[in-house]
Amino acid sequence: MSANTVLLDFSLDPARIIDEVSRKDIVRLCKEGLEKYLTGLKISYDMLTADGYLCILNEASSGTIVTIRFFEQGLITINVEYYRKDGDEPKISFEQTRELENGLVQTLKFNHGQSLPPLQRGPLTRFFPTADERVIEYDIDRVLYDKRSEFQKIQIVHSKSLGNMLVLDELQNIAEADLIYTETLMRRGIEDYAGKEICILGGGDGALLFELLKEKPKHVVMLEIDEMVMQACNKYMSSICGDVLEKRKDESFEIIVDDCMRYLHKFSKEGRTFDYVFGDLTDIPISDTPTGEIWDFIRTILQSSFKVLKPDGKFMTHGNGVSCPESLKMYEEQLAKLEPKVSYTKCTAFVPSFMEEWVFYQVQREDTNATASV
Amino acid sequence: MSANTVLLDFSLDPARIIDEVSRKDIVRLCKEGLEKYLTGLKISYDMLTADGYLCILNEASSGTIVTIRFFEQGLITINVEYYRKDGDEPKISFEQTRELENGLVQTLKFNHGQSLPPLQRGPLTRFFPTADERVIEYDIDRVLYDKRSEFQKIQIVHSKSLGNMLVLDELQNIAEADLIYTETLMRRGIEDYAGKEICILGGGDGALLFELLKEKPKHVVMLEIDEMVMQACNKYMSSICGDVLEKRKDESFEIIVDDCMRYLHKFSKEGRTFDYVFGDLTDIPISDTPTGEIWDFIRTILQSSFKVLKPDGKFMTHGNGVSCPESLKMYEEQLAKLEPKVSYTKCTAFVPSFMEEWVFYQVQREDTNATASV
Repeated sequence: MSANTVLLDFSLDPARIIDEVSRKDIVRLCKEGLEKYLTGLKISYDMLTADGYLCILNEASSGTIVTIRFFEQGLITINVEYYRKDGDEPKISFEQTRELENGLVQTLKFNHGQSLPPLQRGPLTRFFPTADERVIEYDIDRVLYDKRSEFQKIQIVHSKSLGNMLVLDELQNIAEADLIYTETLMRRGIEDYAGKEICILGGGDGALLFELLKEKPKHVVMLEIDEMVMQACNKYMSSICGDVLEKRKDESFEIIVDDCMRYLHKFSKEGRTFDYVFGDLTDIPISDTPTGEIWDFIRTILQSSFKVLKPDGKFMTHGNGVSCPESLKMYEEQLAKLEPKVSYTKCTAFVPSFMEEWVFYQVQREDTNATASV
Repeated sequence: MSANTVLLDFSLDPARIIDEVSRKDIVRLCKEGLEKYLTGLKISYDMLTADGYLCILNEASSGTIVTIRFFEQGLITINVEYYRKDGDEPKISFEQTRELENGLVQTLKFNHGQSLPPLQRGPLTRFFPTADERVIEYDIDRVLYDKRSEFQKIQIVHSKSLGNMLVLDELQNIAEADLIYTETLMRRGIEDYAGKEICILGGGDGALLFELLKEKPKHVVMLEIDEMVMQACNKYMSSICGDVLEKRKDESFEIIVDDCMRYLHKFSKEGRTFDYVFGDLTDIPISDTPTGEIWDFIRTILQSSFKVLKPDGKFMTHGNGVSCPESLKMYEEQLAKLEPKVSYTKCTAFVPSFMEEWVFYQVQREDTNATASV
């Protein structure tokens, strides 16, 4: 079940003056255009607003509501909203919406028209944002898991094209189609993990751990705070995490369910060191740090990681979408503040479930060569 | 300039009865939630509808309009719409919309909430559909060309991530980032075009012709009906079409501006044959054929193409998105109806400007081997 919202908009020549007469004409023609698809539309209400005019039309028999809005800046929006039963055809298909749009543009000599496919609103979340907050409608057809843990909202949904997808706090996290994400994060084929000691911060979906173990490292320790994420992924994402979330530990790896910061301090005190530390925390790190201090938190993670990294060790992490240069720049500014100094390389990959190109960082101490030659 | 439309929706337990008292409570709490971002909201109008209730709130100072809609089937939608000047911050950011959504879900014990990034409505078309009519918002930042030819509406827009993009009749056609589209259509590295004779039906963007010429064919003839598409692409898409649309003809190729059907008949009569025919027409073929007869038209194109193909020649074309199995099946049914019988192979590629996996067909006469051995 869903409500369908059909959106059209029109741009007018800004010099064109819409007086009451021409407004009435436009409303009448919009109404006539809509009446090809909706029967017995009546104007229920209208009003002048601070920047234009609003008119409500009602298809009495069904409850379909149309709002027509005039903005004095030269825009008209039409929103049609109605309840659509599962299996019912839409009242106005996308093709019909575009016919209506083109008809009105030509009849009313608008400069430009735009129409969107009907938006489905209801219990299935179909819309997720890109990093730069554009809307993408996914082909989600069912929800497999939907619970709130102590730390976050956890959902696993099924996408026809991406397979099962983990959604944390309403943001797409990783899907079964996202092997490229893990392979780019770990730089498969470029970095050599054989015999190495590795620490993963976060990584609760298990995909990175699963792929790293194929490279025969000496040992991997994974620090994940949210037990529920691992249980959900173990059940619904096993094509990307294998049995690592089920086993939790063997001679080559160990998953510790705890705050990664606490364990980084512990490792540091014990003098335990790693060849690689992976920052695979969610984009908005799970912590009690207020949002404003998010960059301090990120820098703290980096500092603590370098305390447990061998002198030539590497910190590997994901950045953000290439569409967010400001965010990437801020991350790089944090890197520049680190002591001892670090240098970094970056690479990108198109991540299917993000529907965009993502940036990944590889960070290393700048004095690596000097230290290595000691 | 744009109108911003902010959409939220909530699902309720279907057994939960919303009487007038609880409806008033919900409206009050929605209003209070919205008043964090909008000041002086007042209820201007409300009404019972055939399937629920509608309430209009108005921020008198600015003209922001909020509609709150109750559907008796267990849905509530909230739409906020206001004019936003270029450079102005949104009145409610996506983060704030989600805060509001989560707050209301928890306070009002809704089953589920969903919110969309603010939709920008105005002279820049930012929304295009996938093959299965899901909405995708593109990072379009300017329009370079916008004209209507005798055959179609032609636009070239700029996308931050995809480069310049050709849009025909409001559908994304090809972008500068789409080399993979052309390479998959022609099966670069698999088919050998050296010394071959080739005919392109359509292909007005010039990309296929440009890439084919790099493979040293004997001759390519391209039949494109729309002169204006070629002029627009020559000007704005030269990174994908090189100088072929400027030159129009040399010893290795010729572009004929005419109806491809007319020329296929002419070639057939003259006994002119090709090693490859490419069907690179737009998805909705440009013709005076009514929509209902679209499949007849597609079959006619195929039949006419096979009349000018050498016995072992190949017809190469794009199909549709993998998300549209019914459409692909119908296309394959058309192939099955052809006489003489044909066989086909298919392959897929993720096309950046389509934002989805696309299917490409390679069609050949079934009796190829028999004929070849004569």
